[in-house]
Amino acid sequence: MRIDQNLAFMLQFENVAWFEDGQVKILDRRIYPREISYVVCQSYEEVIKAIQDMVTQSGGPYSAAGMGMVLACFEAQDLSKEEMISWMETAAEKIANARPTTSTRMKKIVDDAVAIMKESVWSTNEELLEIMQQYAIDEATARYSSVKEVGSRLADLIPKDGVVMTQCFADAVIGFIIERLKETGNTGVSFITPETRPFLQGARLTASVIQDMGFEVHVITDNMPAYIMKEKKVDVVTSAADMITMDGYVVNKVGTMSLALLANYYGIPYYCTGTPNLKHETIETVKIEERDPSEVMELLGTKVTMEGVKAYYPAFDITPPSLVSGVVTNKGVYSAFDLKSYFN
Amino acid sequence: MRIDQNLAFMLQFENVAWFEDGQVKILDRRIYPREISYVVCQSYEEVIKAIQDMVTQSGGPYSAAGMGMVLACFEAQDLSKEEMISWMETAAEKIANARPTTSTRMKKIVDDAVAIMKESVWSTNEELLEIMQQYAIDEATARYSSVKEVGSRLADLIPKDGVVMTQCFADAVIGFIIERLKETGNTGVSFITPETRPFLQGARLTASVIQDMGFEVHVITDNMPAYIMKEKKVDVVTSAADMITMDGYVVNKVGTMSLALLANYYGIPYYCTGTPNLKHETIETVKIEERDPSEVMELLGTKVTMEGVKAYYPAFDITPPSLVSGVVTNKGVYSAFDLKSYFN
Repeated sequence: MRIDQNLAFMLQFENVAWFEDGQVKILDRRIYPREISYVVCQSYEEVIKAIQDMVTQSGGPYSAAGMGMVLACFEAQDLSKEEMISWMETAAEKIANARPTTSTRMKKIVDDAVAIMKESVWSTNEELLEIMQQYAIDEATARYSSVKEVGSRLADLIPKDGVVMTQCFADAVIGFIIERLKETGNTGVSFITPETRPFLQGARLTASVIQDMGFEVHVITDNMPAYIMKEKKVDVVTSAADMITMDGYVVNKVGTMSLALLANYYGIPYYCTGTPNLKHETIETVKIEERDPSEVMELLGTKVTMEGVKAYYPAFDITPPSLVSGVVTNKGVYSAFDLKSYFN
Repeated sequence: MRIDQNLAFMLQFENVAWFEDGQVKILDRRIYPREISYVVCQSYEEVIKAIQDMVTQSGGPYSAAGMGMVLACFEAQDLSKEEMISWMETAAEKIANARPTTSTRMKKIVDDAVAIMKESVWSTNEELLEIMQQYAIDEATARYSSVKEVGSRLADLIPKDGVVMTQCFADAVIGFIIERLKETGNTGVSFITPETRPFLQGARLTASVIQDMGFEVHVITDNMPAYIMKEKKVDVVTSAADMITMDGYVVNKVGTMSLALLANYYGIPYYCTGTPNLKHETIETVKIEERDPSEVMELLGTKVTMEGVKAYYPAFDITPPSLVSGVVTNKGVYSAFDLKSYFN
């Protein structure tokens, strides 16, 4: 049984990124669920462009990288084995660097693909393609397995019929939380998700996953969490983390810090999900990316502000460990002040 | 000199609501500044409809009510004096109840118009129209004068070249703050305003007023205040108040509570502007309006969520007195715990 089988439409492998018939199809998360449309890539270079253009995001680029390597292999059909390996090494190098911030993790995926190719014995191109496709699926399965552990542990922290507020889109985490809630019979749980402007991942992606998997979900705008936490009696606040530093700071989609502070004020636990990052001993070494401010002044491409008005667009914010009730990982739930234990 | 002369375009009387040539023109604040367009009313009934349709908001409906009475008078030109008074009384009654929540204050404006009409002596219809128009202008001037007091007092709380974060649209308050900052030479002050979804009054109205009056303004989305308060070194956080209860709770556009809490966390003062309400001894008697949730699931009329996803739309939230650094009124700055002093 495939690990993604019971998950929402947009979390299933075929809808994240998938090689078939000599092309890679990537669900366009920029417009989902308004439209279900795929960007179809005829070359691994087009896969790179799709990743750069943010057709897919969160965990999506990792799947696209794996499938991009299958496509690279397909493109190399007429080459000799040696030429093919060299071609694949070039593809790996280029795909890994599609986006600078994720290159380390991307590199591991594409380099492993090349390694498996080198180790494998194949007599036909069909066999090789099958080997590469199986690797891409195995890689995604391994990623989902780890996320499933995280989701299960978080699900077990949610009280019976509790109300959960999430922040932004945590890719498969919400899917596996719900799978676990179903397993344990805690099906009365409901969700509330801020829309997370400017790209509305909360309203579009998180809410769609929850709705798709049959649980109740309410969307709110990003200025409503205070009222909603208190009046709708939220039990758990949670978010993923783009980075958890070893001194317990959570860097995540902008808005997380204020959810954590509000949760603290109202006596609600705030849990972040993810893995502490050994490369950042302290928050001091983390630089917060500020993106193109014009995106803040637009809604679905329409500019709404007067000429001359400026904007700020920090993509992330920083939540201090004192506001984090627990860091939920694949190995267990840790105190934000004791993250070294994760590596013991 | 008219009190609105140095204010931003959208705060000038002619652009809020204005009687001329037998009609009332109301700036359409629903689309400003994307488009500068006026709803033109040929009858006071059309003014009522414009108020109900939210063509204008905040202080706008009060100006529209005054000008609506001028238009009612114009419509009654062929009537006898007695019939005219009866017609005007009917108009007053109807305009006052255009929206239920503001009817008390609206009633005062339109009833005063009728009273002045009754007290006045006029020989021609032109004379009467002039009297009515002068009343409407005087009423708006009196309202602006009070707001000017508030704005001046708040301006004096802003440090030299300080950074001010506002919440939503406080009508003329921001205009008079800037007028005062100019008077006192504190022209290096800059502003940051969350966009305030779903209708973006912060991005569209507040930011336009500030830009129009020559001060620097940055718009942010509603999930960015935490990062921005800290990283851009905000000095003062401020908002208007739809209601200030006598026990010091501030009911205002949703999002205010979380700004106040963040300000408190970062050691920044949060000032609300307005007048304590004697009709609400405690917050217990206030009911928070929840509006049509479909508006939360839309951006500029386009639905963005999956079918079946729900939403909440509380229009306001409640900030407790412990998070309010001062209530800035036309008479002075009061502690939220000592609002009875305002009435001494």
